Amino acid sequence: MRKAIELAQAGVDSNVGGPFGCVIARDGKIVGEGVNQVTSTNDPTAHAEIVAIRNACKNLNAFQLEGCIVYTSCEPCPMCLGAIYWARPNQIYMACDREDAASAGFDDAFIYRELCHADLSERKLPIEKLLREEGLKVFENWIAKTDKTEY
Amino acid sequence: MRKAIELAQAGVDSNVGGPFGCVIARDGKIVGEGVNQVTSTNDPTAHAEIVAIRNACKNLNAFQLEGCIVYTSCEPCPMCLGAIYWARPNQIYMACDREDAASAGFDDAFIYRELCHADLSERKLPIEKLLREEGLKVFENWIAKTDKTEY
Repeated sequence: MRKAIELAQAGVDSNVGGPFGCVIARDGKIVGEGVNQVTSTNDPTAHAEIVAIRNACKNLNAFQLEGCIVYTSCEPCPMCLGAIYWARPNQIYMACDREDAASAGFDDAFIYRELCHADLSERKLPIEKLLREEGLKVFENWIAKTDKTEY
Repeated sequence: MRKAIELAQAGVDSNVGGPFGCVIARDGKIVGEGVNQVTSTNDPTAHAEIVAIRNACKNLNAFQLEGCIVYTSCEPCPMCLGAIYWARPNQIYMACDREDAASAGFDDAFIYRELCHADLSERKLPIEKLLREEGLKVFENWIAKTDKTEY
């Protein structure tokens, strides 16, 4: 975790992006690391955890992180927590939390509230259905496909 | 939306990844598109919407998508919805929903339930705090920083 916090500070000092760092370890060894790069790379998805997951998966030549531990300098935002669930590591440790992030000017707590509205129509960012029947045909074709790689 | 669904089917047909496609438009013109590439690129974050956001931001040379509309062949998973919130477009349209995705074998609905547990200790993937005081120092340095780029 100290390494993740060091990365966060280094990112601030070098103007790479926001104050966030992440380290992914397996069997006591670092297999991936990341620092927030949103503003320097024009990529709103380049949060520390996303960068670290992509780095670890590249290093391990895998799209799953079984047996890994994620150390992140702040509670993962919904985007990053979702990414962590898809990568399927064993454990997450965080230093700060979403309220600490809100105090520093970041939207994490707001996005958690938005995602968790039971009624989608209550969200501030409008989301509506369109052409569901046509979309379902692709899922039917996926289910029937015999040579697919599942994840 | 028909283009997003076409991309999803093309991704299935070419074994690039899961059955998902996304198009981002502004002023009636496509500014970014993406197809799920998780299994072909060993990147669990390479969902259609993430790929489309990165593509649109690259094309627009920006880390925000003001004025844009996101058309996705399936309801964004929490990772992708979080990414969309960070990119700040104006509207989302989806064809299928999270339950349709679950029927096709994808974890979207499970991850929504996990993220929205009010009590973090109820989650199936353990998350614990570590070294919060040391982490907070980085936020203090960020707040005090005068030459930062906020997002």
